Amino acid sequence: MNFRNKDWRNGMRVTVDYNNMMKKFVGADGFKDSEINELKEAAADAFDCVAQGRGKGMMGWTELPYNQKEIVEDILATAKEVRRKFKYFVVLGIGGSALGPIAVFNALCHLHYNDLAPSKRKGPKFYVEDNVDPERMAALLDVIEPEKTCFNVITKSGATSETMAQYLIINDMLVKAVGDKANDHIIATTDAAKGNLIKLAEQNDYKTFCIPDGVGGRFSELCPVGLLPAAVLGLDIKAMLAGAAFMDNVCSKPSVAKNPALASAVLQYMAMKRGKNVGVMMPYADSLKFMSDWYCQLWAESLGKNVTLDGKPCNVGQTPVKALGVTDQHSQVQLYTEGPFDKVVTFLSVGNYRKEFPIPHGCEDIPDVAFLGGHTMNELIAAENKATAYALTKAGRQNYTITLPEVNEFTLGQLMYLFELQTAYAGALFHIDTFNQPGVEAGKQATYALLGKKGYEAKREELDNAPKAEDKYIV
Amino acid sequence: MNFRNKDWRNGMRVTVDYNNMMKKFVGADGFKDSEINELKEAAADAFDCVAQGRGKGMMGWTELPYNQKEIVEDILATAKEVRRKFKYFVVLGIGGSALGPIAVFNALCHLHYNDLAPSKRKGPKFYVEDNVDPERMAALLDVIEPEKTCFNVITKSGATSETMAQYLIINDMLVKAVGDKANDHIIATTDAAKGNLIKLAEQNDYKTFCIPDGVGGRFSELCPVGLLPAAVLGLDIKAMLAGAAFMDNVCSKPSVAKNPALASAVLQYMAMKRGKNVGVMMPYADSLKFMSDWYCQLWAESLGKNVTLDGKPCNVGQTPVKALGVTDQHSQVQLYTEGPFDKVVTFLSVGNYRKEFPIPHGCEDIPDVAFLGGHTMNELIAAENKATAYALTKAGRQNYTITLPEVNEFTLGQLMYLFELQTAYAGALFHIDTFNQPGVEAGKQATYALLGKKGYEAKREELDNAPKAEDKYIV
Repeated sequence: MNFRNKDWRNGMRVTVDYNNMMKKFVGADGFKDSEINELKEAAADAFDCVAQGRGKGMMGWTELPYNQKEIVEDILATAKEVRRKFKYFVVLGIGGSALGPIAVFNALCHLHYNDLAPSKRKGPKFYVEDNVDPERMAALLDVIEPEKTCFNVITKSGATSETMAQYLIINDMLVKAVGDKANDHIIATTDAAKGNLIKLAEQNDYKTFCIPDGVGGRFSELCPVGLLPAAVLGLDIKAMLAGAAFMDNVCSKPSVAKNPALASAVLQYMAMKRGKNVGVMMPYADSLKFMSDWYCQLWAESLGKNVTLDGKPCNVGQTPVKALGVTDQHSQVQLYTEGPFDKVVTFLSVGNYRKEFPIPHGCEDIPDVAFLGGHTMNELIAAENKATAYALTKAGRQNYTITLPEVNEFTLGQLMYLFELQTAYAGALFHIDTFNQPGVEAGKQATYALLGKKGYEAKREELDNAPKAEDKYIV
Repeated sequence: MNFRNKDWRNGMRVTVDYNNMMKKFVGADGFKDSEINELKEAAADAFDCVAQGRGKGMMGWTELPYNQKEIVEDILATAKEVRRKFKYFVVLGIGGSALGPIAVFNALCHLHYNDLAPSKRKGPKFYVEDNVDPERMAALLDVIEPEKTCFNVITKSGATSETMAQYLIINDMLVKAVGDKANDHIIATTDAAKGNLIKLAEQNDYKTFCIPDGVGGRFSELCPVGLLPAAVLGLDIKAMLAGAAFMDNVCSKPSVAKNPALASAVLQYMAMKRGKNVGVMMPYADSLKFMSDWYCQLWAESLGKNVTLDGKPCNVGQTPVKALGVTDQHSQVQLYTEGPFDKVVTFLSVGNYRKEFPIPHGCEDIPDVAFLGGHTMNELIAAENKATAYALTKAGRQNYTITLPEVNEFTLGQLMYLFELQTAYAGALFHIDTFNQPGVEAGKQATYALLGKKGYEAKREELDNAPKAEDKYIV
């Protein structure tokens, strides 16, 4: 990868093609130029809002491509050490602390990475544990050796019950397995000053990386949350950050015609205003499958809000749906083509796949099969992507395509920064707080109450006094 | 497993709890008893429609729990042979030919099955290839040895481009690797008489299993499509079928109060009629994560239709959304709690997990962490499930819970049959053709045209003459 070369960089630019959002292509449901123009001022305001908020409040993430020089060196040195010392690397985290590492791992490592012989991998076996299912924890312990495992505990507050429960378990297990040396097996990624995990890290002398102020979970992939796991896997994190900076620069204009993140935000905003409450994210690449999961958190948690910044009640937010091309053509496309007009489909297309696979000739007496011979899988998947976009458009269904010239660190950095900016713009258009998540509090508090945490006695009483489920509604 | 014992079976009954769909619990958006009663006749009609259609037309799947005695013996013998001879078992299929095998594998095998030493697994390493991404095919070939691999090619028509392209590739590879013996490495699962794969199977003397008439892709998990892979993995396919038969019997009454599949169908139908176009499927178990994928195809492809059986235009269908508890509490629940009132959340809960995992005491000076100690992961995940349902209900969001007393072959068979019946009932309520998928044809034809298949010249011309994408809409 030659991301320091300008021509190479320009050839690797991620683009947004929204032809199929327009009336001219998609018919009745499409937008007219004039309708996009009507939002010119609102779009410029959203752009300004984001530009002026840069680096402040919960917008610390905008600066991550630029302000981590020393941190990157520390990460690279640590990653090298981890690769030397450990056979397994396990991320303990949930939500933003897991989805980014998973997405990058799947996008940039071998699709059967853990099945490869150690000599064919750049790093240790890799697991991300983002649930508290006892069967899953037991399964993990069946396939790792604690004395050869490094655990990266990721939680900003150190109050994330799921991650801290995992921490209690693995710490206990490590102490039993390696005694005093347990501390060498844990790396903490957390807030520099506040919270519980930094306390524990100091008490136990864990190697620690900081989640900077102003970087919320779902905007944290380009800080040590994501960079350390990526570096452990041998990925080029400088190229990821360079990609993010490149996209930041591409998005420096306040106009839909020139800023892909703003274009995407405005189009989705317009679609939502017209009742398109479902947003399908459909990569045509197995490598990008989990990029949809990462995007889904970013989009759902940022935009799913019940109050505007002025305190006016609202219930906004588009439900992101994960699909995979071509696989889900045989699962979801029937619905997308014929069901309600309530969706926008975003394709993630790939210019050049990293492998080419010819389809041999054969079955010459069977035309349904023979026509495939002599083509490549690359041609087949590209044709199906194009054909699906065409079929949806013909059926009057809005869709647009984000193209990565290739899947690599640089384009992935671009894509993630593009989505982050798009989300920030969309939140500004809706005039909501893009960066909070008050709606998850109620569930957390009920969990505390059910588990008997001190201070939640009143909540427990509330739960105990809630109407009892009636047997007649259980079949 | 003791599925022949009546008490055991009754203790393993899968139930539907829809208290939180009712006004009394969820408030304004909920249903009144009287509203469900108003649909009594429509529900009974849907029940009759399905009961009378059993075993006919595209409803051959209803008989699968009963009519496969000999086939099951053949499958078990074949599976035994596969386990003896092969180190890897690869399913080549897409849509219904892949989603069922993946769901059952993940539900019932070790969560890191392929990472286990051979002595700790009941069957060969297992892969399901349901895409035509060249990077994925290359990755597969890096981790299997053709001479030790059995490929199960699954396609009813033998005209599925994706699967047949894979077939051409692996057949060519096998011939190069093992010459004449290539045919011993391929098992075909396909239509008994029609189509291309049966021709190839006969020409090449492949071991063959039949997909019976009246069993469409998404309803095929309980025929050899799903049963052979399950048996190869050492799973108890007789218990799966017994579970399906058990649920069939449970669903033998035409009333919402007594038939869980009908209850689920009627509730979802009512919700959709009130604009709840999104249906979230949220298992609280990693083992059931891919059951959501299987369900999503079943529900989306069956109900996403643009015409009724009378030929009246419509655009119906609920968009199924996959979520995983507790993981997606940190990704999607913010939206579910505060976003638009356009969803029904279905929880899949588990009574007893197959492992218990204690959380050790620790961090006594940190109350946010210490309160977890002494509980089990089982208690934690159960509390979070309960808390999330409570929080959604309190926020006025309809949700209901399907409970599996345990995840095993018997309960999984029940669950799949429950969903299949529910889908058939829902289709009958909407008065649509539940079993076709005309909406995927346009995309297929465009793919053929783009790849130059004979007979698609006119389609190619149509594509060439479509309005050209304009550069001004590419950013």
